[in-house]
Amino acid sequence: MSSIFTKIIEGEIPAYKIAEDEKHLAFLDAMPLVKGHSLVIPKKEIDLIFDLENEDFKNLWSFAQTVAQKLKINYPEQRIAVAVVGLEVPHAHIHLIPINKMEEMNFKNPRLKLSDREYQEIQTAIVNS
Amino acid sequence: MSSIFTKIIEGEIPAYKIAEDEKHLAFLDAMPLVKGHSLVIPKKEIDLIFDLENEDFKNLWSFAQTVAQKLKINYPEQRIAVAVVGLEVPHAHIHLIPINKMEEMNFKNPRLKLSDREYQEIQTAIVNS
Repeated sequence: MSSIFTKIIEGEIPAYKIAEDEKHLAFLDAMPLVKGHSLVIPKKEIDLIFDLENEDFKNLWSFAQTVAQKLKINYPEQRIAVAVVGLEVPHAHIHLIPINKMEEMNFKNPRLKLSDREYQEIQTAIVNS
Repeated sequence: MSSIFTKIIEGEIPAYKIAEDEKHLAFLDAMPLVKGHSLVIPKKEIDLIFDLENEDFKNLWSFAQTVAQKLKINYPEQRIAVAVVGLEVPHAHIHLIPINKMEEMNFKNPRLKLSDREYQEIQTAIVNS
């Protein structure tokens, strides 16, 4: 069965995509800890990020760097924190989370409820930066 | 003033080193969330990881991958989680944390108190794997 992320890649499930190339996709987290919380994934469906071939692994992080730099433009006061946990979806994904303080990247925190319009505004700002 | 990590690189402060090359160092976190909690750093003192030159950034992650693979051998039941936060030490560092569940990577958790002997055993096991 395809992972939820593969369904996003294939357009079966909608997502606010912010960057894409042949092998990678970035989109806004549907349950964000903070505004700008994004996910970066390889299109190849693999559970454990460290199981990627070294070249694929490096290219995924390189792609994540370009996304993080766009986030930094949009959230200049925050640090762009990184987390890879992967206990919930068996498709490797990098969280990029603009934070002011440690507490904001606690995954047990309640998630933001954003309207479609808010998501679109965030998406547009990141894509255009 | 040198960061605490630069002092570790230069041997002014002791650390349980587990991997090293010309540009990178990995060592056991002195305040571990779990056994095997490790830090991976570039020897170049830079605050924000995403400010590294792309090539340096990719090579740092590549080095982290080799360390994570050694951790996986030693903690086969765990996932090797990743976190980059950097609010405490202004020298980019990647946390590699063998976890069973999300709660274990909450940085507000109390830290393990390990004896020198326990640290040495963990260090030796990782280095030799």
